[in-house]
Amino acid sequence: GSSEHLPEMRNEDVNEFMIKTSTNICHPSNMELEDAPKETPEAVEPATDAAAAQDPALPAEYERLFKVVEENPEDFNGWVYLLQYVEQENHLEASRKAFDAFFLHYPYCYGYWKKYADIEKKHGYIHMADEVYRRGLQAIPLSVDLWLHYITFLRENQDTSDGEAENRIRASYEHAVLACGTDFRSDRLWEAYIAWETEQGKLANVTAVYDRILCIPTQLYSQHFQKFKEHVQSNNPKHFLSEEEFVQLRVELANANKPSGDDAPGEELPPGTEDLPDPAKRVTEIENMRHKVIETRQEVFNHNEHEVSKRWAFEEGIKRPYFHVKALEKTQLNNWREYLDFELENGTPERVVVLFERCLIACALYEEFWIKYAKYLESYSVEGVRHIFKKACTVHLPKKPTVHLLWAAFEEQQGSVEEARGILKAMEEAVPGLAMVRLRRVSLERRHGNMDEAEALLRDGITNGKNSSESSFYAVKLARQLVKVQKSIGKAKKVLLEAVEKDETNPKLYLNLLELEYSGDVQQNEAEILACFDRALSSPMSLEQRLTFSQRKVEFLEDFGSDINVLVAAYEQHQRLVTEQESLKRKSENGSEEPDSKRQRTDDQSGASGQMMQDMQANHAGYNYNNWYQVSPAAGMHTRDCVCVCAA
Amino acid sequence: GSSEHLPEMRNEDVNEFMIKTSTNICHPSNMELEDAPKETPEAVEPATDAAAAQDPALPAEYERLFKVVEENPEDFNGWVYLLQYVEQENHLEASRKAFDAFFLHYPYCYGYWKKYADIEKKHGYIHMADEVYRRGLQAIPLSVDLWLHYITFLRENQDTSDGEAENRIRASYEHAVLACGTDFRSDRLWEAYIAWETEQGKLANVTAVYDRILCIPTQLYSQHFQKFKEHVQSNNPKHFLSEEEFVQLRVELANANKPSGDDAPGEELPPGTEDLPDPAKRVTEIENMRHKVIETRQEVFNHNEHEVSKRWAFEEGIKRPYFHVKALEKTQLNNWREYLDFELENGTPERVVVLFERCLIACALYEEFWIKYAKYLESYSVEGVRHIFKKACTVHLPKKPTVHLLWAAFEEQQGSVEEARGILKAMEEAVPGLAMVRLRRVSLERRHGNMDEAEALLRDGITNGKNSSESSFYAVKLARQLVKVQKSIGKAKKVLLEAVEKDETNPKLYLNLLELEYSGDVQQNEAEILACFDRALSSPMSLEQRLTFSQRKVEFLEDFGSDINVLVAAYEQHQRLVTEQESLKRKSENGSEEPDSKRQRTDDQSGASGQMMQDMQANHAGYNYNNWYQVSPAAGMHTRDCVCVCAA
Repeated sequence: GSSEHLPEMRNEDVNEFMIKTSTNICHPSNMELEDAPKETPEAVEPATDAAAAQDPALPAEYERLFKVVEENPEDFNGWVYLLQYVEQENHLEASRKAFDAFFLHYPYCYGYWKKYADIEKKHGYIHMADEVYRRGLQAIPLSVDLWLHYITFLRENQDTSDGEAENRIRASYEHAVLACGTDFRSDRLWEAYIAWETEQGKLANVTAVYDRILCIPTQLYSQHFQKFKEHVQSNNPKHFLSEEEFVQLRVELANANKPSGDDAPGEELPPGTEDLPDPAKRVTEIENMRHKVIETRQEVFNHNEHEVSKRWAFEEGIKRPYFHVKALEKTQLNNWREYLDFELENGTPERVVVLFERCLIACALYEEFWIKYAKYLESYSVEGVRHIFKKACTVHLPKKPTVHLLWAAFEEQQGSVEEARGILKAMEEAVPGLAMVRLRRVSLERRHGNMDEAEALLRDGITNGKNSSESSFYAVKLARQLVKVQKSIGKAKKVLLEAVEKDETNPKLYLNLLELEYSGDVQQNEAEILACFDRALSSPMSLEQRLTFSQRKVEFLEDFGSDINVLVAAYEQHQRLVTEQESLKRKSENGSEEPDSKRQRTDDQSGASGQMMQDMQANHAGYNYNNWYQVSPAAGMHTRDCVCVCAA
Repeated sequence: GSSEHLPEMRNEDVNEFMIKTSTNICHPSNMELEDAPKETPEAVEPATDAAAAQDPALPAEYERLFKVVEENPEDFNGWVYLLQYVEQENHLEASRKAFDAFFLHYPYCYGYWKKYADIEKKHGYIHMADEVYRRGLQAIPLSVDLWLHYITFLRENQDTSDGEAENRIRASYEHAVLACGTDFRSDRLWEAYIAWETEQGKLANVTAVYDRILCIPTQLYSQHFQKFKEHVQSNNPKHFLSEEEFVQLRVELANANKPSGDDAPGEELPPGTEDLPDPAKRVTEIENMRHKVIETRQEVFNHNEHEVSKRWAFEEGIKRPYFHVKALEKTQLNNWREYLDFELENGTPERVVVLFERCLIACALYEEFWIKYAKYLESYSVEGVRHIFKKACTVHLPKKPTVHLLWAAFEEQQGSVEEARGILKAMEEAVPGLAMVRLRRVSLERRHGNMDEAEALLRDGITNGKNSSESSFYAVKLARQLVKVQKSIGKAKKVLLEAVEKDETNPKLYLNLLELEYSGDVQQNEAEILACFDRALSSPMSLEQRLTFSQRKVEFLEDFGSDINVLVAAYEQHQRLVTEQESLKRKSENGSEEPDSKRQRTDDQSGASGQMMQDMQANHAGYNYNNWYQVSPAAGMHTRDCVCVCAA
């Protein structure tokens, strides 16, 4: 039957499965490569190969190239020059130092793992080469190429003395297909595995491998089935079937040939896989068996073909499945988004996880996919989420704030406040001056009752702002915190007044001062509010900004002012600014200062009605703390000027 | 001497002068046209001419045409059709009704006053015609044409029986030049006056008129001087000089001819204007007198020429000095502005006032000039200001809100609250639904302690708003008044909640609800504030608006929220909206719904970095009640994607 199909999981299995899968994929070191040393390579080096204990001074050119990438690890070209240099120079120590440093930043560059292993091998450090491959496969277990290179390396360098060589190679193939065999583009690995088992003459193993690949949607799914049929047609069932399947089939076929209704025991069948004694029956049995074997696989194939067809367009859309520092095309990114959404809706958790892992090789530099993955894992495994965040933040995206903020939030949600604090601090050290990170640090402290620390962080932002607008931004935040959390209007006012002294042209500061006064009793505070307006109006702010404030002043006085004289004076003050602005506009439009009367204009209409509209809008837009509740009602009325014949 | 120059006034004279001038100019009825009947024409009609007592039914076509303009007095073409009709039909009653109605709206159409007077004359109502002219000149005293028509009418229809006819005509010329003789374009009036005096043989009067026009800057200033010189050359000084000037000149010339140091009395001069006995001396005296007369006028002319030169460009710029309902060109308006500013800085108050009056004929439909005039008069005369506002608002600009608001404010400043109330009500009746007028009515009541009336006016605005956005506008205003003046948060909230029920997609209402909650204790109100956000987020507002609210929610939680879980949930909610918006944007950009993977795009870069920037901005823009304190610090960082060769 079709019991070999990838099983659709029941919901209750999902959680456990995810933890297992996620751990498997992310930690190939857990994949029972029993002889892998657990130490880090640095620690291992002197121990594994005694001959490695040479320590020559590194060349000056190496030091120069290394300095470049040390100072700017994002300079990928710098790394390429460095690695080319150490390869050409054939300098082992320099190579090790360079590659080890490189892989801290770019573990997904599988080709460089191979280069690194080759260098070790070339210097005779077979164990070190093996270790490099293992580290590489741990970093990028989905790399079919790296697995193939590794197994080739293993076959070329295996110890055949203990008779276990074949089993060790088979175990490696098993690890490889477990790690990346469900990848849509894993065909070359499966083909290699089949070819190797064929070479070993283990035809039943070949069939077993075919039985696995035939139910995995891959690019060459159809070719596998063709080759499987050739394998069946050109070999004897007793060789390409396991004894169990062979015996079961023999019984099935014998029963099927019995006349119907005949319950009597049929002809005695030979034991095990021994041939039938009758040569004609023997040939018939072989043919029937081949037919039956292919027939059952045909069903699997049909189902698999259907699964392939659903994914074909998405897979076609993946033009760059490997890692690259260059930005991905928009269409590529959309394809990944849509493919992930498709699997999230239709696929098994295993498929979803594998697709995320594939996606995060191609899109390692895009935090949205890391975030999506972490979000997906949330309902399965806290450790899985943590692992993804950590990998994203510490390896691939040390300078992306959003993923750091989400990681910190996740840790805070788990109650790990100290961890969250550390993540935010690290992010701030990597990229100083990011407001979103600083504000999260502030809010973390605030949420945990450390108001002094929250205030200190904001004050630090004010003091160390890289320009006055940044300092003012923090001043506004601090003032709001002082008013709203610490309930101290006096302290808040002091902060804003100090800020406005240093940043005289920042409308936000004047607005916040206004809001501070406005938040109290507007009748009692009228003088203070008007003083705020006048501070803004007599400031060196741009004319446009001052116009906005004078509009607000007029509207404030209309809504809350006690004295019509003050309102009229404010209106006139505003009109003077409007006139000033218009004359500036005229000058800049004409690029000259000669009076208008000397010039011809083509736009005859706008003049006075424009002026009037401006008057009306001035009356409407008002002081608008919110800067939004503009009126529409009156606007647009009465702009029509009568156009008709002249009298008299 | 040059004592005939327009005198430069001392400051202390200005106030008195202004009141006089302003009254003179505006009320020609005060100009001692002693025999003018004081009754209104309607009252006068049956009394003055008995034959006028016919009262036929008015024609149907007349009624039809009249209805058009009655319903829409701004339809100037409608008036033109009506007046053409009554003129053609020669229907006196209809004409009177039509013209009287017309001039309530367009008193500056001087040509129609003449037409009206002609109709009366044609029907034999000479007194009525005279009355029409007087009304016309009261309405537009600066009209040289109307004065000339009137004087022609007077000369043709004068009563010569009492021997006072010449004096009456002279008095009319005097009234005319007092009313409009300082107008730059008053030359035709002066010429007519001179011609008439010449006709009367009053050459000394001619000289006196020349002495006045020679020191007034007018268009034909130079021509007047030429003609004056001809007048002097072709007449005898004893005829063209007053006796006083003649005698004074004769003595001056005799003294000048005495040898210097000779204190002895010279030759005995004949008394009065009698000729010198010696014929040669007689001729010499005439020539010397002519020379002297022209010499003194030359000085005046030079000074006047200088004054003309300063105004020439401005006067050249006035392409349409008369009234017209068509809009004026922008350059014309600018010319008036600049000319007024010039006279305000350089001219005498008389010149300023005359220029304002001239300007307000050409620019009668532009409230800015009425306002400028009223403002100018403010330091001279409360009555003058009131008169200008009244004329602007009741005659020319019954539908312009700004000038009404300023008039109402002026009356309120004078303590005339009832007057102010009436002005605003009248404006609202003329143009219902103007928010700026309604808000001024509200603030007027508020300033005078009538809080119930203020509230009622706003509630009326809510109820009778012509659409939901207008009603919501008043709801916001009322809510603010309730909170800030009446100190009732509960009432304010009720107003906003009722408004949001009727206007579910208005972000301003949600924002004001938010602000209401935010204005209290944010920690205590956290649940209410979040409920406000969620009301907005689950409303049928546009996605863009909801995005803004979800940004604000994230920022609010960052700044003041107590729970990291809520913050993370809000962030995720926001991201879902961002994604939704992006997919909508993609669809609309492509005008199709086929998946992106099927299409080719040319813009490769923007994709992921755009997404990331959006993430960052989402974190930055925040809840922003003020919608302004966006951060710049982090924006623009880390958008650079490494662009270099592919590894492996």
